[in-house]
Amino acid sequence: MIATKGYAAHSQTDSLKPWDFERREVGENDVLIDILYSGVCHSDIHQVRSEWGPARYPIVPGHEIVGRIAKVGSNVTKFKVGDLAGIGCMVDSCKECPSCKGGQEQFCEKGETVFTYNSLERDKQTPTYGGYSNKIVCTQEFVVKVSEKLDLKGVAPLLCAGITTYSPLRRWKIGKGHKVAVLGLGGLGHMAVKFAASFGADVTMLSRSASKEKDARELGAHHFCNTRDAEEVKKLAGTFDFIIDTVSAPHNYDLYLGMLKTNGVQICVGLPPEPIKMNGFSLLKGNKSITGSSIGGIAETQEMLDYCAEHNIVSDIELININYVNEAYERVLNSDVKYRFVIDMATI
Amino acid sequence: MIATKGYAAHSQTDSLKPWDFERREVGENDVLIDILYSGVCHSDIHQVRSEWGPARYPIVPGHEIVGRIAKVGSNVTKFKVGDLAGIGCMVDSCKECPSCKGGQEQFCEKGETVFTYNSLERDKQTPTYGGYSNKIVCTQEFVVKVSEKLDLKGVAPLLCAGITTYSPLRRWKIGKGHKVAVLGLGGLGHMAVKFAASFGADVTMLSRSASKEKDARELGAHHFCNTRDAEEVKKLAGTFDFIIDTVSAPHNYDLYLGMLKTNGVQICVGLPPEPIKMNGFSLLKGNKSITGSSIGGIAETQEMLDYCAEHNIVSDIELININYVNEAYERVLNSDVKYRFVIDMATI
Repeated sequence: MIATKGYAAHSQTDSLKPWDFERREVGENDVLIDILYSGVCHSDIHQVRSEWGPARYPIVPGHEIVGRIAKVGSNVTKFKVGDLAGIGCMVDSCKECPSCKGGQEQFCEKGETVFTYNSLERDKQTPTYGGYSNKIVCTQEFVVKVSEKLDLKGVAPLLCAGITTYSPLRRWKIGKGHKVAVLGLGGLGHMAVKFAASFGADVTMLSRSASKEKDARELGAHHFCNTRDAEEVKKLAGTFDFIIDTVSAPHNYDLYLGMLKTNGVQICVGLPPEPIKMNGFSLLKGNKSITGSSIGGIAETQEMLDYCAEHNIVSDIELININYVNEAYERVLNSDVKYRFVIDMATI
Repeated sequence: MIATKGYAAHSQTDSLKPWDFERREVGENDVLIDILYSGVCHSDIHQVRSEWGPARYPIVPGHEIVGRIAKVGSNVTKFKVGDLAGIGCMVDSCKECPSCKGGQEQFCEKGETVFTYNSLERDKQTPTYGGYSNKIVCTQEFVVKVSEKLDLKGVAPLLCAGITTYSPLRRWKIGKGHKVAVLGLGGLGHMAVKFAASFGADVTMLSRSASKEKDARELGAHHFCNTRDAEEVKKLAGTFDFIIDTVSAPHNYDLYLGMLKTNGVQICVGLPPEPIKMNGFSLLKGNKSITGSSIGGIAETQEMLDYCAEHNIVSDIELININYVNEAYERVLNSDVKYRFVIDMATI
């Protein structure tokens, strides 16, 4: 077994504290990664606090992982020692069902998607521990290659916030000629703006904070609307081909569906705790759609990282020491981060 | 002006009674149609009773109209006297905005879609009166050609129930290789089954009435599920590429989203009076979509009628005399019709 240092919570009300644990030995198809950076995702907080159902404690969060390959199993062909590598939200799946074969391992139909933490390995017994740790062992198929060209600190959040926004933009073939709104400027929203602008769309940031206009424009948004301003909102009726909805607080779906053009699509990547609710007319009038999108598969994650390397796209981040992580959580909850905390794992 | 006999309600609580009124003279771009048959749509009842907002009384319902051209204006090239013709839910629009030019006149962006009844002409003054009448005058662009090959009585409902189900099936390119569920076996549902089966899809009828299985299979459904049977419902998890949801009573969207495969789409053509409500997870898990679809444009309505003529598709109907219409309404509300009442306008 491989001695590993991590940060874990031991109960729903616990803060994150140093915790030593063991990773499995490197199997023939596995790689060992020395973790350099790990992003802090809002969903880490939900899970640490059992807000998405009871968590498995101790819980070591973290699914935005970048590091270097330290060891490879005898059958590993994809990596060699010293390569940069990344791990996102998943570390295994059945690899055989239609969803897995179709490149959407996050929806494994055998229910064997193994998430990076707060999950069980396919043996249904061994808990997984995430990236707030100095080492991780993973089957090579679920490890992606990371370019040496990018700023690694900003790469970590691509593994979740990046793919979560890249995937639906690609799925819906969003680009030149489209008017796209991004609802909410946080970790997901700032990546949605970067990708949508990079793909050639005309991008409008919709935010409740007028103070975010400057940032939104710097990230690539062409227009800004303060959604607290009823007059401005009114003008946007029937404007957008797509809305990328990154908001996970309850909000007014009828209002945003009304901003869509005929045949427009609202894409939800945030997960509100309360039911999504809309008037049937809001959908029927204009043949509108509302759709969900959850992360992305492994091949698409690699495609996204390659695209980012080619177009020099990374997340905007604040680098922190790991002993700051509990304070960072409070700031995430107050939307006080531009736009992702990333833990420097050298500080563990 | 053209003297016209119709059936109208004069208030929200009124039944339909004979009412004489006048149609405009045939303009240079207009045709006059002697109405042969007029279908009874559930939405007629909603509107007569002001259930979709206050109606304009007197109201002459009817937007599933088939008849023969009796007179043509000097600029009319599309029709000659004696031709069969149909009118659906719309009789005019701006014809210039992106939605109109894109063949979706029902979503005219200038708000100038003129509905066949309970609406105002583009002059915003002249009320429109529908197909429960012996004559109608309409601009040629909003009149469609009807084949002599089909049983005309069964053609009338194609103008609303037909296009409402045909349009989303085409928009989503549904056909061979797709597993499609049709939720609800009424006027819309029975047309959805016919079209989906005709397009080559594998069709399952989802209904609360076991008694409908025989009919569903005769209409073309390959499978049947009684949705009151929890065990049967459970087996359908992750089964369908598409669900055509024709139900306008409140229902459990999470349940049906759960029956969709990864990337599946629930298409709502019924309009429930209460908000549509679903858990965010139901959309995000499996990248699922829920979409609305409202009738279809004029060109697509013509395409649908041509397809029906080629494939011998009509609605299953019960022909009634017009003085039976109030009783027919009660039976529609009790789902006691297979599957559309059609008024024989010779009885007016």
